[in-house]
Formats: sequence, C-alpha cells, structure tokens
Amino acid sequence: MKLNIALLAGDGIGPEVIDQAVKVCDAIAKKYDHNISWKPALTGAAAIDAVGEPYPDETHEICANADAVLFGAIGHPRFDNDPSAKVRPEQGLLKMRQKLGLFANVRPTFTFPSLIDKSPLKRDRIEGTDLIILRELTGGIYFGERGRKDDGNTAFDTMTYQRFEIERLAKKGFEFAMKRSKKLCCVDKANVLESSRLWRETVQAMEKQYPEVEVSYEFIDAVAMRLIQWPKGYDVIITANLFGDILTDEASVIAGSMGLMPSSSVGSKVSLYEPIHGSYPQAAGKDIANPLATVLSAAMLFEDMNMTNEAEEIRRVVNKSLAEGYVTEDLAEGGKSYKTSEVGDWLASNI
Amino acid sequence: MKLNIALLAGDGIGPEVIDQAVKVCDAIAKKYDHNISWKPALTGAAAIDAVGEPYPDETHEICANADAVLFGAIGHPRFDNDPSAKVRPEQGLLKMRQKLGLFANVRPTFTFPSLIDKSPLKRDRIEGTDLIILRELTGGIYFGERGRKDDGNTAFDTMTYQRFEIERLAKKGFEFAMKRSKKLCCVDKANVLESSRLWRETVQAMEKQYPEVEVSYEFIDAVAMRLIQWPKGYDVIITANLFGDILTDEASVIAGSMGLMPSSSVGSKVSLYEPIHGSYPQAAGKDIANPLATVLSAAMLFEDMNMTNEAEEIRRVVNKSLAEGYVTEDLAEGGKSYKTSEVGDWLASNI
Ligand SMILES: CC(C)[C@H](C(=O)O)[C@@H](O)C(=O)O
Ligand SMILES: CC(C)[C@H](C(=O)O)[C@@H](O)C(=O)O
Repeated sequence: MKLNIALLAGDGIGPEVIDQAVKVCDAIAKKYDHNISWKPALTGAAAIDAVGEPYPDETHEICANADAVLFGAIGHPRFDNDPSAKVRPEQGLLKMRQKLGLFANVRPTFTFPSLIDKSPLKRDRIEGTDLIILRELTGGIYFGERGRKDDGNTAFDTMTYQRFEIERLAKKGFEFAMKRSKKLCCVDKANVLESSRLWRETVQAMEKQYPEVEVSYEFIDAVAMRLIQWPKGYDVIITANLFGDILTDEASVIAGSMGLMPSSSVGSKVSLYEPIHGSYPQAAGKDIANPLATVLSAAMLFEDMNMTNEAEEIRRVVNKSLAEGYVTEDLAEGGKSYKTSEVGDWLASNI
Repeated sequence: MKLNIALLAGDGIGPEVIDQAVKVCDAIAKKYDHNISWKPALTGAAAIDAVGEPYPDETHEICANADAVLFGAIGHPRFDNDPSAKVRPEQGLLKMRQKLGLFANVRPTFTFPSLIDKSPLKRDRIEGTDLIILRELTGGIYFGERGRKDDGNTAFDTMTYQRFEIERLAKKGFEFAMKRSKKLCCVDKANVLESSRLWRETVQAMEKQYPEVEVSYEFIDAVAMRLIQWPKGYDVIITANLFGDILTDEASVIAGSMGLMPSSSVGSKVSLYEPIHGSYPQAAGKDIANPLATVLSAAMLFEDMNMTNEAEEIRRVVNKSLAEGYVTEDLAEGGKSYKTSEVGDWLASNI
C-alpha cells in the first residue's frame, strides 16, 4: 500500500522522537511491502522562527492532503515566561486541530507488564488497567473568546460548547464503549458550569440509542481522585477539552511514564498521531528522550488504517525492548540505558 | 475564652460528621476552659427544602456575626442529575464563600504515619509529603458570567480574573512560603488561557517583594501528573478556583483517604472550616462516614485563633485513634471498624 504521511517534528525533543518513529515505520513498510512517502512540514516555535507563524498554510496543505499526520511536540519556554508574547507555538497546535477538524483526541491508558513496578502507584491498583479517555479537542475554553479589559487588569476566557460538538464526541464515546466493556463515564463539573450541564443533558438524551451501554456522570474533581485510587473502575471517559488535558496527563502516571503514552486525534478525513508528552526542552538535542510514545502513536496510525498486523508488530517490538531493558534513561532506573537513536535503531532492526 | 461558632451541617453526611466535631470541640473547651456557643444554621439542599434557598439571609447573618464557621458538606444527587434545576445546593456554598469574602481556600496535604501504606501510592513517593494548596475561591469560572444561547443549544461559562484577586491570593501564598520551605509554585494554563497569563504576569511582578522565595510556574496538566509522581517536590501551590478544585481532590489520594483532609477558607473577618470531601449521599444517615476531616478542620480553626495547644491536642487524639485502629470502615481494611458516632465519642473521651 502507498501511504503519504505528513511529518511534523515540531519543537524540543519532537525531531528526535519523530526520527525514531520514522525508522520504525520504514522497517514496517519494508517488511509488509508498503510504500511510505514522508512529507516533512514546519510547526511550532520552529515554524515561528522560520516563517513567523506556528502553523503555516503550506503545512496545512501538506497535512490536509496526507493520509495521516505524525506529530512530535510543540512548545518552547521562551514563550511560556513571556505573558505578552504575540505569537505562540501552541497556537499552531490549536489551529492545526481546528483546521483539520480533529475534534476527538483518543488517549488510551494501559500498563506494560515489564514496567508495572515503575509506576508510583501500587501494582494491585493498576495491573490490568485499560481505559480510554476521549477528550473533546476543538471546542471549549481552548477556542472561546478571550481577552483583556480595564487596561489589561482583567482577563477572561470563555468555555463554550454547542450541542453538536458534544454529540459528535459522545457518539464516538458510545461507539468505543460498545466495542469494549460497555461502560461510559461523562466527566464534567455540572454542579457549577452551565456548559457541563449542556454536556450532561446531551449525553443523557443519547443514552436510549445505546441501551447496552451503562453511562455514569461524575465530577472532574472526584475523577481526578478516583482515577488514581482505582483506575480499573473506568472504561471509556468522555470529557471537555480542558478537563481531558488534565486527566490524560494525570493518567500517564498509571503507565509509569509519560514517555510511553500515545494518542490519536480524529474527526475528519485525516487523523493525527502524537505522543501525549510535551516538547521537554531541557532534554532537546541530547538524544536522551524516550521515543516509545511516538512509536506507539505510529502503531495507532497503522491500526486505524486497518493494518492490524503492522500495529501489532510495533507493539511487540516495543514490549520486547522494555522486557529486555533496551530503554532510554527515564526507564533505566540507574541501570544501563540507551540513547534515543539507539532505541530507534534497535526497534527497527528487530522488525 | 468565649467563642461563637456558626454550625452549618449541610447535606448528606454533613450532619453526622459535624456532630463528632462538636463533641471534640466541646471536650477541648472543657479541658482548656473555653466557652463555645454553637449557632446552627441551614444551608444546601437542607435549606432549599426548608426555606427554598440554599444560603438564606438568616444563615448569612449568623455566619457574619460568628467568630468562625464550621461547615459539613453540601450537595444532593437529586440536583446533579437534573440539568434544568433552578436552585442548586452548590449555589449556597458559592454564595457563602463570596458573601463572607473567603477568597483563599487553604488545603494542606500530609501523610499520617499509621496510614501511609493505605495510600494507592508507594511509601517512598509520599512519606514526608507536606504541601499546601492555596485555591482562589471567590473568582474565576465559578463566578463569571454563564448562560445559554441559540435556544439552549449553546452554553457558556466565563473564567474571569482581576489583578487584585490574583494579588491577594498570591500574597497569602508568598507569606505561607516564607514560613515554610520558601518555595512557591503558580499553577496555570498560560500557554492557552489569557486569565492564566494575567496570573503569571501578576505573580512575576510580586517576586521582587519576596526575594527569598523561589517561584516556579507550571502548567496544570503537568502538575496533575507531577503531584502524583513526586508530591515532595511541592511546598506551596497557588492556583485558580477550578484548578484548585481538581488538584486538591487529587492530592487527597496521597493521604490515602479524602475522609482525612481538612481545609480552611479565609479572607476577611470570619473564616470557615470544612472537610474537603463532599456530602457522600450514599452513606448519609448510616453512621459510617469518617468524621476525621471535619475534626481536623476544627483543629485548623483553633490554630488560626492562636490556640495552638488545643489544635495540637486534637491532632494528637486523631493520630492516636488511627494508630490504635479506632477508625471508621473506610480505614479499617476489613478489620474491626467503628461507627461515626463511636469514633466521635472515643476522640472526645480521650481529650
Ligand atoms: C501544548 C498544549 C497547548 C496542549 C494542550 O493543552 O492541548 C498539550 O498540553 C496537549 O495536551 O496536547
Ligand atoms: C460542591 C462544589 C461546588 C465544591 C467546589 O467545586 O468548590 C466542592 O467540590 C469543593 O471543592 O468545595
């Protein structure tokens, strides 16, 4: 099969982890006789530096015409500590999500047998965890009106949701639940927020279309606690953009490292695959970042293209590297560790 | 000393846990020769049922004229699952916070030596945790404009902050930090939200007044993760209302149970003391709820009144009950457990 994949390395460790995913995909392509044509494009701080814009039109063209997008990371501390910066790398990410219509971010949380004791959580709490957080990605407070008033002394952001935005995300949630344990949890703050009440009302109205799915409604504060106390209590979680941002990062502690968690963003023709970790600027250029989250995101890409064997092969080789300790320093616990590029080479050569 | 304490039992398990705190305070008063006059008042669903309003004017009068307020819990599922309810118990809590000017919610997180192995987190990650989350309590998305448009198909909530709201909260944060390890972390989402950028700008401008305090700025998603990975990395955290709501519930897993975490809400003449847990309706009336968070909130009350011995005495007797296993079922791990009222009696008789 012929695949066109837009390659957005982005900032910080982005280029390094993306390189390893490319090696792995190329090895898969060779073994399974596919033809991947990579289309590199600029985004984030890298794009601001080059063309003054974090998601340039050329990049959008490349993404919109690709079969899928593989994305690294975005963000640079230079912008974070300058509250008055006019252009920010993150705007590129948000614009990309919106222009590509990626309204659902799918973040699976699971454990790796060989890493279970690396988690800050006790084994019996997490062993067998298998949940998916579906985060709404093109609405909410990320995209509502924001600004300043009173000579800059008042700032506001608006969390807005329209019924159709909730419906299309919830539909995906119900569909995932039907393919899994048939449990759906809608996470909101309906005891305070009007937008959360619209979420609850909308999901409630959809319940009868999926009579087999057991739906629960929980508050974000309670879930932030229960997700750590008993993650096995959850199957599919649907939630708003901001709440999903928080919960998915939090859920990464279950796996023991953020360096392991992949994600896909879906919603229209083209889907995007990216690790959930950030650009980790302190590690950039040092060849020490963990590439596995990006490699596992590539596995999600093959899965979504119905290339199940290819996806399984990637997961197999990742598990093998973990079991044999062929890992970057974040997972080495003081033992022998390998460079980002060495891990990538090892994975590719084991395919 | 003579103390007038407004007593707001509220909903669910509120009345039961409040009763035990009263027993303990009365025992303290007897031992240390104080005179506590309790002023019960209605709030929450209980107040809606009685007078149609979750924070009636009489209740406000009683609170405003008291030396302190001791509060149980608020909330009832009857309202949570009815997105169209016009009056909600939570509105009472929000109105109370606002009318009493309680702009800072102080939530300490610590571990109990005898409970450390009850936490879902591993001992080495949490032992020695001692952090305070200072949550802004009368602003942000809890109090901004909200509503519906387009025939109810669009809902919005506004997260608004004014510079002075951030300054007064941050001032408390810097003051706490000066008395502790001199580390302050401002938690926000400044890479997306304008209100977060105002937080960052405001706190940055205050840094020079407290040259000894080491200030860091972190994103809420990252903190939701790091708080579990390495809670000992934090000392004092300051954050917006919604973020604080989420982080403090999350932090309760460190102590092993939400039933243990006290809080105070301060800002003007009268302060309020309440457990961080909710009304736990499934347990209401069963005499099984853990009263310790409310009892420890009473300890914070004495502490703030400069009655340090009294506060210490309460903490001593709570630790004793934990060490001797005189606990409610949530902490009994299948072993012998005691009723809410029995624990209260035991605590009082050991003072
Ligand atoms: C970089 C940032 C804007 C982004 C977000 O908040 O969506 C990131 O945290 C994520 O989760 O992808
Ligand atoms: C009951 C609810 C409105 C409240 C809040 O969100 O503030 C509670 O969760 C709390 O943290 O005190």
